[in-house]
Amino acid sequence: MARLVEYKDMAPRAKAVVDGIAKARTIDPAAINNVWKALARHPDVMERFADEMRAAFAPGKLDPLTKELIYLAVSVANQCDYCIASHGAMARKKGMTEEMYEEFMAVVLAAQKGNKLVMAYRVPVDAAFEDQ
Amino acid sequence: MARLVEYKDMAPRAKAVVDGIAKARTIDPAAINNVWKALARHPDVMERFADEMRAAFAPGKLDPLTKELIYLAVSVANQCDYCIASHGAMARKKGMTEEMYEEFMAVVLAAQKGNKLVMAYRVPVDAAFEDQ
Amino acid sequence: MARLVEYKDMAPRAKAVVDGIAKARTIDPAAINNVWKALARHPDVMERFADEMRAAFAPGKLDPLTKELIYLAVSVANQCDYCIASHGAMARKKGMTEEMYEEFMAVVLAAQKGNKLVMAYRVPVDAAFEDQ
Amino acid sequence: MARLVEYKDMAPRAKAVVDGIAKARTIDPAAINNVWKALARHPDVMERFADEMRAAFAPGKLDPLTKELIYLAVSVANQCDYCIASHGAMARKKGMTEEMYEEFMAVVLAAQKGNKLVMAYRVPVDAAFEDQ
Amino acid sequence: MARLVEYKDMAPRAKAVVDGIAKARTIDPAAINNVWKALARHPDVMERFADEMRAAFAPGKLDPLTKELIYLAVSVANQCDYCIASHGAMARKKGMTEEMYEEFMAVVLAAQKGNKLVMAYRVPVDAAFEDQ
Amino acid sequence: MARLVEYKDMAPRAKAVVDGIAKARTIDPAAINNVWKALARHPDVMERFADEMRAAFAPGKLDPLTKELIYLAVSVANQCDYCIASHGAMARKKGMTEEMYEEFMAVVLAAQKGNKLVMAYRVPVDAAFEDQ
Repeated sequence: MARLVEYKDMAPRAKAVVDGIAKARTIDPAAINNVWKALARHPDVMERFADEMRAAFAPGKLDPLTKELIYLAVSVANQCDYCIASHGAMARKKGMTEEMYEEFMAVVLAAQKGNKLVMAYRVPVDAAFEDQ
Repeated sequence: MARLVEYKDMAPRAKAVVDGIAKARTIDPAAINNVWKALARHPDVMERFADEMRAAFAPGKLDPLTKELIYLAVSVANQCDYCIASHGAMARKKGMTEEMYEEFMAVVLAAQKGNKLVMAYRVPVDAAFEDQ
Repeated sequence: MARLVEYKDMAPRAKAVVDGIAKARTIDPAAINNVWKALARHPDVMERFADEMRAAFAPGKLDPLTKELIYLAVSVANQCDYCIASHGAMARKKGMTEEMYEEFMAVVLAAQKGNKLVMAYRVPVDAAFEDQ
Repeated sequence: MARLVEYKDMAPRAKAVVDGIAKARTIDPAAINNVWKALARHPDVMERFADEMRAAFAPGKLDPLTKELIYLAVSVANQCDYCIASHGAMARKKGMTEEMYEEFMAVVLAAQKGNKLVMAYRVPVDAAFEDQ
Repeated sequence: MARLVEYKDMAPRAKAVVDGIAKARTIDPAAINNVWKALARHPDVMERFADEMRAAFAPGKLDPLTKELIYLAVSVANQCDYCIASHGAMARKKGMTEEMYEEFMAVVLAAQKGNKLVMAYRVPVDAAFEDQ
Repeated sequence: MARLVEYKDMAPRAKAVVDGIAKARTIDPAAINNVWKALARHPDVMERFADEMRAAFAPGKLDPLTKELIYLAVSVANQCDYCIASHGAMARKKGMTEEMYEEFMAVVLAAQKGNKLVMAYRVPVDAAFEDQ
């Protein structure tokens, strides 16, 4: 298991990253979640990931909940327990209801099935899908 | 590569499935895409998958484009070329602009990175995420 | 794409491996399938893989078709196109009928769904399953 | 971790699913395993999965143990800990001996190696395998 | 298949990225490989990936060939055909001999086997490995 | 969780395997790590894996640390927690510094991104990469 660094014990570079996240989420930096406490020992990776997350979740054409659902879909496909737990919580905070979650899971499971089907039956891509 | 069965050559059970899909999409059944032409030789799997897709994409709390993006996210994570090609086309048909696609990819790639990071650093799930 | 080495052009170590496989399958060594033509350039990997395959498919408590279905199930889960094509052909040669193939796919797809479900819902292992 | 719902606390739809499974396995519904206790909160997914499992494991051309081994093979390939634990137990109950398990693992590991080999060396599918 | 944009037809942002890569590799920008011709239509993703690659392959404590082998190992595990082809070529350019490639594959395949073994047998992490 | 067999309780075949590993690592056989304690119940798989590991890590053209990093890269890509923990420890023992680990992770994460990018954008392999 990762050795976690509490906010008060973080080096300045790590603290700066957490400060940015805490401010954006309007939470106490000391309440930052474990992934950042683990990353605090790896400042290059930490800064790059924080930057990539900030850019990915910056306001844009897709609303915040849709982005969380995309993140969660990838995490379920990749079977990342931490990400499922943390981004499931995020999705709920951003408005995912139980009904939405049921629909989300229905699509994820249909996709899983579709993915394996077309591989198992070795389906060639339609010409119509090549021209985009 | 799968041996594809054209609509006119399908058995009644397969034809019925394609008729249902073609009607819902308001397309000519003869223009059905390859996955269904391949599945036509496997009627049990075909009917079950068609049923699961219909249920997953039935009108609900998540809009049709969001569902396509969730499907596409799973397909990218699973590296299913056919699904990426076909559901990429579907997403565009349902309103995905280039800007949305850029944002989609940014989230998918951030998720991929997050998934691997927490595994590599062996991050334990926060107690706060357990209670949901 | 791999540069394939035809049997007649193989070095003695590779030829010996192919001879063993051809004999066991009662085929002409020149008709060996591509994976071995590709492996011919990598004799250490080739010998070790041939040995592992021979041991895995040696007569035992599981019948030859069951072993092929296990191999095929892993290959579908891993989305290995070559392996799906080649071991699908092998399974047919060893007696897999269309009905069996339908049942095989039904189990594979149910397993895929089960695998993702328990990860997504974060299901803990039952105490009863720990004691084996 | 999933919040588990005990049988006595399940809603009627979930109870009905568990009743069906318990009857088929001739066990007490209260002794149902965790995946169903977790799914009880997700009735649509639960019903669909129970139905798919019932169909996949219905009597047919493949015997019950072979089906369990196929399920287990997918679960090992997908690294699903819960499924490995639960379907490993199921396989034993359906007659898998230690010798069979050794052979099963030998085939799974050979398949894993074969899958990666052909991808790494980029082996093209033989023409002979295309025509099926 | 991706629509590729040739260097002469790229927008300035994409051209700038390719110029940087071409300079570092001392090649003609027109000879840039396909991934960049595909990314040219996705400038945000392109710039971020180019930046991440530059940082990852910047001179450091690990030599350039070791880094290529790490990249190639991930690509084989993930079964990315393009990446296996392109980074296999890169590795050769940076000094990977056939003997090294044999050893590389031996380690990759041993790792694949080890990964599946410990999952299949559900091996708990040693206390000694937790304290790092 | 696997039932672990302590060295003193192992059957002769398992003991012989552990003796070989312990001697090579110059450790007390009783201090062998869990994977071998779990494998002790599966002697065929155990012997074959021990043999494959010995061959993969035998002195050669790639130095021991490079081999560990390749093993670790595969394990991160495959998300094998035990392997990440154990081979992370091994890599440190063989000289991996924190700086090297940062660089390792940077390459692994860049590879993960590259792998998904080329699949998502469906990038065709360059003709130049085919001819090797």
